[in-house]
Amino acid sequence: MHAIVKEKQDNVGYEFPFEGEKHLATAVILPYREDTWREKAKPALDEYFEVVKAISQYEKVLLIADPAIDYHILTRFQLKNVTFFRHKTDDSWARDTLPVFLRNKDGYLLGVDYGFNSWGGDYNGLYFPYDNDNNLGKELLLDLSISRFADKDFILEGGSIHTDGEGTLLTTECCLLSKGRNPKLNRKQIEEHLKKTLNQDKVIFLPFGIYEDETSGHIDNICCFLEPGAVLLAYCDDQEDPQYLMSRKDYEVLSQETDSKGRKLKIIKMPLPKPLYLTEEESQGIVEDKNAIERKAGRRLAASYVNCYIGETYVLLPQFGVEEDKIAFDILAEFYRGKKTIIPIRSREILLGGGNIHCITKQIPFSDLYEIESTEDSECKK
Amino acid sequence: MHAIVKEKQDNVGYEFPFEGEKHLATAVILPYREDTWREKAKPALDEYFEVVKAISQYEKVLLIADPAIDYHILTRFQLKNVTFFRHKTDDSWARDTLPVFLRNKDGYLLGVDYGFNSWGGDYNGLYFPYDNDNNLGKELLLDLSISRFADKDFILEGGSIHTDGEGTLLTTECCLLSKGRNPKLNRKQIEEHLKKTLNQDKVIFLPFGIYEDETSGHIDNICCFLEPGAVLLAYCDDQEDPQYLMSRKDYEVLSQETDSKGRKLKIIKMPLPKPLYLTEEESQGIVEDKNAIERKAGRRLAASYVNCYIGETYVLLPQFGVEEDKIAFDILAEFYRGKKTIIPIRSREILLGGGNIHCITKQIPFSDLYEIESTEDSECKK
Repeated sequence: MHAIVKEKQDNVGYEFPFEGEKHLATAVILPYREDTWREKAKPALDEYFEVVKAISQYEKVLLIADPAIDYHILTRFQLKNVTFFRHKTDDSWARDTLPVFLRNKDGYLLGVDYGFNSWGGDYNGLYFPYDNDNNLGKELLLDLSISRFADKDFILEGGSIHTDGEGTLLTTECCLLSKGRNPKLNRKQIEEHLKKTLNQDKVIFLPFGIYEDETSGHIDNICCFLEPGAVLLAYCDDQEDPQYLMSRKDYEVLSQETDSKGRKLKIIKMPLPKPLYLTEEESQGIVEDKNAIERKAGRRLAASYVNCYIGETYVLLPQFGVEEDKIAFDILAEFYRGKKTIIPIRSREILLGGGNIHCITKQIPFSDLYEIESTEDSECKK
Repeated sequence: MHAIVKEKQDNVGYEFPFEGEKHLATAVILPYREDTWREKAKPALDEYFEVVKAISQYEKVLLIADPAIDYHILTRFQLKNVTFFRHKTDDSWARDTLPVFLRNKDGYLLGVDYGFNSWGGDYNGLYFPYDNDNNLGKELLLDLSISRFADKDFILEGGSIHTDGEGTLLTTECCLLSKGRNPKLNRKQIEEHLKKTLNQDKVIFLPFGIYEDETSGHIDNICCFLEPGAVLLAYCDDQEDPQYLMSRKDYEVLSQETDSKGRKLKIIKMPLPKPLYLTEEESQGIVEDKNAIERKAGRRLAASYVNCYIGETYVLLPQFGVEEDKIAFDILAEFYRGKKTIIPIRSREILLGGGNIHCITKQIPFSDLYEIESTEDSECKK
């Protein structure tokens, strides 16, 4: 009712927890833009719904919807554990547009709110304008009464970093050193900036992401931590595929690196699905305009099982309707051996929009200082 | 919109700042009960208005009003810097019913929310029921997204303690050891409880408060810190007055004590106004019922200039329309010598309800992490 703005000038004492630890909640933003999501986003909303429903079995989901999204679309999402927020949004990538959440020993949370320029701004951004998405972090922090540590001059999407929760940050050179991000900073300066703003001890740069990934190659599509000391790397055995050398180079870097604790990393190879392409039918359902990049039939899709979302006791795993789906499932099931339930979810429609399950989710680390209020129906109706 | 409940299990690292330091805001609760405030609280509201207006020149005022208070009464209070809150209240003593606000080095605030039993519960409480007032702290903390440290099993009103902000707590035996508060705890246990919950190093117990004070003798009517190392003590030179010996005993204790830093205290004597009594006319304006103590004509009023409210650059000083008013003003002006502006405010009507300016105000220490939102008119109308 009388929310209070909190701006923090420093991040001293705040840690960046591993995604696979307990969450307070997961934020998801609903899609609606017709120049990106075919058929008025209806098929995509079906997959977003499956993601939200699955997460809501385990924890609260904060569901952000643009005022343009009709109330009747939201009614379907009125599940136990789902709280609605109405904010102007440009698109639906919670991973990239929402703050990176840190937590201190006292249990207070802090949202590191970096600048967002639609994955490259004037250089190679994907939609314009992106003001609403750039402001969304501030709005959500206000809603949640979580302190904000603003760093808007530095461009960073949440999907371009992964942490093990013990001070090791994973990222990619292709994205972080791209001209579309922070061209005035060199690699060393970017590394120092990441360490400082996220309180990390070590940054590991992989050279490449996934081939044709429109994010300039986010880490979250190519490699993630399964637990401290162990990473999952998207791998390709087909030497004819451009991805082959990219993944091999990444493997070489990882196999020579140590983490913040001096440990060698255990590398679990995750096969990629066979190459997937945007179909004619899918492309025709998208309303082309000048505000977003074109999505033509035949375009290769940056599909990857590494773009999974890891909770304390569950993993949401992308599925593409191909035979590699089962292999991916088995690899994670084998790794977690009952410690986390692997939940396969079809996500081709999310992929058509340019990302996957990890890209549309953002974890807020658990703290018993906070409790999310339930939604009143009136919030949906706004 | 989606406030978050914050409950903290400990108060480690939180300090209790001196009232005379910079405030984030001051909370005030409006009066309305007709069995306490004569003529439907109209004359009292005039004085509350003057207090709110004066504070709002310097800082935000959080104005809490029971839903029973008509919107048209609130419109008068729609000043710049005033934010409204609608909550069920039993009466209007922000000092006693609202939490004690602590602050940590990071700038986070914490509300210590003690139990409230209307100054004595079944033993010698003043009005019944008092559930709304006992719940008010929790409600306000929710509104402000300030963490709550609940200690509801311990009965304590904010007016029964004063701190110098450096670890010295002032209180009175007559109140803190009263059977109406925490009869199962002995003096040592109460002292330890205060130290622990408010992070204080030393507790100084004065034996007495103000004669006939219906709060069992709150410290804030008899003695307060003017700054660390200096206290203001309500004093009486009339040996026929029961207050004479009470104040003298308190003086003796203070003059032998040292504060948490080992300093002797500088004691500034503040004369009391001549004895004041409830008039027949005043008494007749009160609607007598069984829910609150009787207020009969001839009753001696516990008037004291020590019940002033100290901000960073101002002091609100009670005035009773007697010649001692000017002396009181001069004593504070002389002490603060331009560092704080002394603002005299007539407060006989507040006194008739059983307290004074300090009793109706509660400071929230300043922190640049927090910013109070402005009131929307709709809040008044609720």
